[in-house]
Amino acid sequence: MEPAAGPAVVLVRPQLSENIGTAARAMLNAGLSDMRLVAPRPNWLNDKAVAASSGADAVLHGARVFDSTAAAIADLRRVWATTGRNRYMVKPVHTPRQAAAAMRAAGAAGDRCGVLFGPERTGLENDDVSLADTVLFVPLNPAFSSLNLAQAVLVVGYEWYQAGDEAAAPAAMTKGAGRPATKEHLTGFFDHLERELDACGFLRNAEKRPSMVRNIRNMFDRAELTEQEVRTLHGIVHELVTWRGKKGEGGA
Amino acid sequence: MEPAAGPAVVLVRPQLSENIGTAARAMLNAGLSDMRLVAPRPNWLNDKAVAASSGADAVLHGARVFDSTAAAIADLRRVWATTGRNRYMVKPVHTPRQAAAAMRAAGAAGDRCGVLFGPERTGLENDDVSLADTVLFVPLNPAFSSLNLAQAVLVVGYEWYQAGDEAAAPAAMTKGAGRPATKEHLTGFFDHLERELDACGFLRNAEKRPSMVRNIRNMFDRAELTEQEVRTLHGIVHELVTWRGKKGEGGA
Repeated sequence: MEPAAGPAVVLVRPQLSENIGTAARAMLNAGLSDMRLVAPRPNWLNDKAVAASSGADAVLHGARVFDSTAAAIADLRRVWATTGRNRYMVKPVHTPRQAAAAMRAAGAAGDRCGVLFGPERTGLENDDVSLADTVLFVPLNPAFSSLNLAQAVLVVGYEWYQAGDEAAAPAAMTKGAGRPATKEHLTGFFDHLERELDACGFLRNAEKRPSMVRNIRNMFDRAELTEQEVRTLHGIVHELVTWRGKKGEGGA
Repeated sequence: MEPAAGPAVVLVRPQLSENIGTAARAMLNAGLSDMRLVAPRPNWLNDKAVAASSGADAVLHGARVFDSTAAAIADLRRVWATTGRNRYMVKPVHTPRQAAAAMRAAGAAGDRCGVLFGPERTGLENDDVSLADTVLFVPLNPAFSSLNLAQAVLVVGYEWYQAGDEAAAPAAMTKGAGRPATKEHLTGFFDHLERELDACGFLRNAEKRPSMVRNIRNMFDRAELTEQEVRTLHGIVHELVTWRGKKGEGGA
């Protein structure tokens, strides 16, 4: 039987080769093998990484390297961002168990997923978190919560692995309209919308622009847009800005 | 409310001080603090252990030392023995999840429990396993299952933590979500958007208009928009349309 494809594990700007190695080891414990690195240090694949992987070096050798988080997740349709603390943005939150159930359902539908892990000391930047559709928060002792990178990867992978046998796929939303859009497709729409919002001056406040952009993206992310809906939104934006000679000059 | 007493974590003949430290850290992540060591090396509580505990040194300082496994578990009424491979003995086997449920039930009844972890390289001797009533087996990739001591402690502790009342799933939304918009507020936005889409001709197909309108509303409904977000969308529509007026005739 084909093993269900597990989530990609995306390490964003990982700092130590050794931690990339231990993360690979944690992945393979859970049967995961799709490792993606965003802007790792040069020569990350060294003896330290291999030694730390304790036999999981195949995962290291198969790891793909990307320049940006967006590029690393372009082909994925569901992405979780791990955070260690509350972020002041509006996004749904999953525990690893909830995420695992959703990952299994997505896998059954052929939708690839992934999980973002940030740099060891600082965690993910808000801009990275906003690229995901869901935040993943590991509920542990609030008085002392300090998982290292490999442990975080392990907990997520462990829950995914556990969710394989017994978990019936949770009731997915009845869409009927098709598959969730890929992150690349979504980004295309965001770029289009933001281009027009820049042109019309909606985003003219340079200081507020980053958080406004994040908030708008979060809003659309939560809708779990299908490919068809993304096309519709492209059309809406285009037609709203296209003059059709029905109004006088000077705008509404 | 008194926190539920968690299982004692019993390290049998642990080899490296550093691993005792990382085990303490894993324990505290899960809210566990009862550490017991069976025949550790002399001077195990050294700088390496403290450093590796990353702030969980209180667990180290509270750890009790015993000469034998039997002595370490004398006061316990339920004991699990972790194993990494099949043991040829007749004992019930629990996954960490099953064990956690039993631990919670035992805790509620006032019965103290504990979990045995063996030396890092070799695992528990059969004689140690036989002192337990249940074997604890962490189900992971059978082709590659190599949890280190801290990871094994973490998985067991994590499951115990999840199984408690207090580990309710975190709020469905991150902080800063604001209140969901009222239906009236949402309808106001839909009316605004549809008015403009009618004006620009996007909804000109009379036969398709009803389903197009429904699909657009469904999409925004799924985002579970807050009041602030509805205001933002009003602003986006208004400014895109106003820009259209300023771009001049002939369209984009």
